[in-house]
Order: sequence, then structure tokens, then C-alpha cells
Amino acid sequence: MLTLCNRKGAIFPLKILVALGGNAILQHKETGTAEEQFANVKTTSKQLVQLLLSGHHIAITHGNGPQVGDILLKNELSKNTLPQMPLDVCGAESQGMIGYLMQQSFDNELKSVGLSTSVVTVLTQTLVDANDPAFKNPTKPIGPFYSAMEASKLRQEKGWTIVNDSGRGYRRVVPSPNPIEIIEGRTIRGLFDSGVIVISVGGGGIPVIREKDGRSLRGVEAVIDKDLGAALLATSLDVEVLLILTDVNKVSLNFGKPRERNLGRLTIEECENYLSEGQFPKGSMGPKVEAAVRFIKSGGKKAIITSLDYALDALEERNGTIITS
Amino acid sequence: MLTLCNRKGAIFPLKILVALGGNAILQHKETGTAEEQFANVKTTSKQLVQLLLSGHHIAITHGNGPQVGDILLKNELSKNTLPQMPLDVCGAESQGMIGYLMQQSFDNELKSVGLSTSVVTVLTQTLVDANDPAFKNPTKPIGPFYSAMEASKLRQEKGWTIVNDSGRGYRRVVPSPNPIEIIEGRTIRGLFDSGVIVISVGGGGIPVIREKDGRSLRGVEAVIDKDLGAALLATSLDVEVLLILTDVNKVSLNFGKPRERNLGRLTIEECENYLSEGQFPKGSMGPKVEAAVRFIKSGGKKAIITSLDYALDALEERNGTIITS
Repeated sequence: MLTLCNRKGAIFPLKILVALGGNAILQHKETGTAEEQFANVKTTSKQLVQLLLSGHHIAITHGNGPQVGDILLKNELSKNTLPQMPLDVCGAESQGMIGYLMQQSFDNELKSVGLSTSVVTVLTQTLVDANDPAFKNPTKPIGPFYSAMEASKLRQEKGWTIVNDSGRGYRRVVPSPNPIEIIEGRTIRGLFDSGVIVISVGGGGIPVIREKDGRSLRGVEAVIDKDLGAALLATSLDVEVLLILTDVNKVSLNFGKPRERNLGRLTIEECENYLSEGQFPKGSMGPKVEAAVRFIKSGGKKAIITSLDYALDALEERNGTIITS
Repeated sequence: MLTLCNRKGAIFPLKILVALGGNAILQHKETGTAEEQFANVKTTSKQLVQLLLSGHHIAITHGNGPQVGDILLKNELSKNTLPQMPLDVCGAESQGMIGYLMQQSFDNELKSVGLSTSVVTVLTQTLVDANDPAFKNPTKPIGPFYSAMEASKLRQEKGWTIVNDSGRGYRRVVPSPNPIEIIEGRTIRGLFDSGVIVISVGGGGIPVIREKDGRSLRGVEAVIDKDLGAALLATSLDVEVLLILTDVNKVSLNFGKPRERNLGRLTIEECENYLSEGQFPKGSMGPKVEAAVRFIKSGGKKAIITSLDYALDALEERNGTIITS
């Protein structure tokens, strides 16, 4: 591993898990062409290579929301011609797709700065508990919007839970159970420890439960929060830093309100208090802060929430929100 | 590694690359539901676990024809709503999908016989030469059938080569260049040598070329013959046996004709003679025999072509076609 010096002198090389948000791969306003996604991933890769040049060793995980959404919609639009794939299989497809974009792009950027570190994507399943209460209370909207009539038909035909999504139409909701074990964790750890840059646990991992035999795995129609999946992976890799990259530089209190205030440093106790006050929205900052807390509680040293552009600064504690015990 | 004895007494544990044909995942008459594919892969896994119980260490590679075909067709059917993904990205999706089916299923079968060997899928890119003559002569039909009018429009709009496919309609053909390097080969080899069962080079690998800078990789719209990809992987893993599993127990001369004759043993010289006589059809047995020849010429000990049911028998030279130098 390289151990360069930065402006401030010698630095300590760190083991870091980088958790990439959706915008590292696809921006909100984009339509989702392969070209757009390759271009975004290239920008992301350029920034992440800076972490390696600073001497750190990284592993990468990422979301898959827009990509799995498009795969589901393609399934839906071709349902009269081809069998529809269940959500776990669609998740696997999205891991293949995103992993490919990222491993090619990252490899190109590494070579352009003279590094020959190997980059690979490991397809990942994440174990959840078949008795997780989330299975009784599906909350995570996925896939296309339906009309009221279609929704009623799908509820009957497929037993799906479909809700009216903020007046924009009807949408399927699936459970978001708690991730408890990364099935391929041992192999991912082995690769990481041997110096390989591993891309894994994409989209939180493909959710699987153990069958009643206590042994066999089976995929389930659910989604795992990618940040909570990242916290589990970070612990399993025994990294020092969980670096969660998102749209904003810092976590804020009263986000989008008059008395908005950026947070530079947080203890896990403060995080828990703010979480219980409902300061952080459920589908966005909430799980990131929750992931930080879980990582620190499991023995991690430091979690950072910031944007891609400030990743290096945040590692040197000059930006971002730093969460410690 | 286990070293059990079979009926005949002690056996030598071998390193084997198993190349699975399309029917190991999806049978011709099936529609392609996830249930069908899981059921087939379960049967395949049960058989392959027997190889491990006999003391051998295996790696797995597989085709992706029907699966990438369905992904392409879904792209086509949803083209008015969503951007179409290029062939390399569709190939990556299919590796994710098939890898997931296989790694879950194989892991389940391993556990059912008390083995705890790790199974992982590594997303794989395969390097081809940008100047490969195949790029000037696309031959491999992929994706859906088109009408003459659609074909003409697609030729103009996308620059695709589209041919009349045996009177069944018009179909896109893409180049099938020669695989020259497995980009993730080093990592796959490391995993294999450490005892992990690696699923890789799915569908021959995602074809990539080196850009003019001599360094960066870029995906291309082509397909790599999965058997030729398997030969390259077998060499890169330094296995003793390349075990190509297909629909039939043995390679035949005059296949489907009056004087059909099964072949039990072949030297690579005989293979090359029969290949030049055109004995083996291009899209099916031809590349398998060619793969066997390449593997032996690169230092491999033995290639076997047989069906899943006779894999163990063929390893003991009681069935199948055995190809040696």
C-alpha cells in the first residue's frame, strides 16, 4: 500500500468503507442511459482514487434504487411476453450492472495514476430474519406507479401491498428488514485484507432468509437499506472509518427549515437523541445516521457523512459530519 | 479439502473447471421463470456437489444465452419508456442474475451434505482485441426477431448488422471476437487457490477492448463464446481438467446422420482434423472441441465433453469424450 504524505506531513493509512449514494451513479434529473451512468461513475472514481493516493485502503458499497427501479419497470412493460422476475433476482441484476460500471471505471482511473490494485465486484446476499417485524409492515415503495384499478388487480393476483404514494399514484411497498449477516462476508473480508478493492453489498445486498431447516437460503421480496447494509459490511471488514457519501456536505438539524444548522461533530448519544426527536428524514438522512451509530457501537472508530467532493477534507476533519463514540 | 475414496479405492483430488451449458440453467422448452431456473440450477448443484464429495476442487463458469436474450427483449419492449442498455451492460446484468441463482443454490446443496466451502460470484470482463477480424464480420445472432421494416429502421438508426435468420425473421448479429485475457483473472485465481468455489466468466465474460491509450478498458457490443472463455479461464486457473457439460454424453461424428458414431477418446490432432472437416456444428459442438484443443495446447492435462449426469463417470473415464494431447 502507498503511504504518501499530505500537506500536513505524514498521515496514517486507514481502512475505509466508502458507501456511495445513488447520485454517485445516477443524478436525479437524468434519464438513466448507460452513457450518463458511466460518466457519473467516472467522476466518482476519480475522487475515490484520491483516497488511495493518500495511502488509504478502501472497499466500496453502493445503492441501487434507480437501477432496480428501471429493471422492475422493464419487467412490468414486458409482462405479456416474458416472465417477470422477482425482486431478489432484479436486485442481483442491478448488482451485476452497477458492479460492472464501477469496476471498469475504477480500474481505468487507477491505471491512469499508475496504480495496479485489483478491483472486483462480489455478488452479495444479506441475511435477514424471516420473523423480522418489517415483513408484517411493508413500507418501502418500489417499481412503477399504477392506477387505482391496476393496483386493485395486483393486490388480488399477486398479494402485493400497494399504497397511494403521496397522491402521485399507487405503488407497491415491500418490507425493509434489518440486515443481520453478509453471506459472502468471509470471502469479501479475505479479498479486502489481501489488498483487493472489493465492490460488494450493492443495494444493501440481495435479501435472503434461512429456510425452516436452519440452513438453506431463499431470496425474499424485500429491500435492505443500503446504509444499514454498509454499517454491517464496515463492521465485518473491521475498517476504521465508514465514509457515507451523499448529496450534502454535512448533516443538518431542522433541514430545510428556518433554523437549519449544520453539524460538524456528533457523538452516538447525540445521534440517538436527534433520531428519536425525528430530526432526520426516514428515507434519506435517518438511515445514514442510524448506520453511523450501529458501526460505532460495533467497535468502529469513526463514521463520516459528507459529499463526494469533500471526502478527503472530511477524513482530515476539515469538513463533513464526524460521528464518534 | 476432502479426499474420500470411491468404489475403486483412493482417488486423486483434481482441480477442475466446470463449464455449464445453457440447459444447466434453463431448458429449451421452458419459458424462463425464476422458479424454473432455480429448479434447474438446484439439480445442477446437486450433481456438482458430488464432485466435491469425491475430493475434487472446482470452479464454475456458465453460458448466458437465454438470460441475456430475455434482458435484451425487455429492453426492446420498454424502449419508448426507458433508455436501452448496450449489450455489455445487459451481459453484466445476466452475470448478476445467474451468479445469484447459482451461488445460492450451490451453497444450499453444499450445506445439505455438511460442507461449508465458500461460494462466490465474481463479475468478469474479458479482453478482446479491438482489431479482431470478427468486428468486421458479425455472425452471432442475439436478441429478438424483427420484421423486415423494423430491421431496415434499426440498421439506419443504430448501425446494427441485421440478417435474415433462417426465414424466422430478421435478427441482429454481433461480432464474436476471440477472448485473450480475463481482466479479473488474478483475483479469481487467488480465490480458487484459497479453496473458494468461484463462479466467474459468465457468458464468456463481458467483452472489453483496450482504448488507444493502451490502458483503459471499454465495453463493446459483442459476445464471447462461453466455451472459448472457459478454455481461457481453465488455463488461467491452472486446473488439470476442463469439464464441459452439455446436452449429450459424448461428441459424435456425423451427428444426426445415418453413420453417427460416438467418440470416446480424442487427441488434439484428431480434434483439429475433424474441426477442419466441419464435423462439429459452429454454434454448438464446434466451440466446445475448439476450447478443449486450446486448453490442452496451453498446458492443460485433460478436457472432457459430456452431460451433467455422467460428469463423475467421465472423470473416471467410464463415459464422455476424453480429449488429451
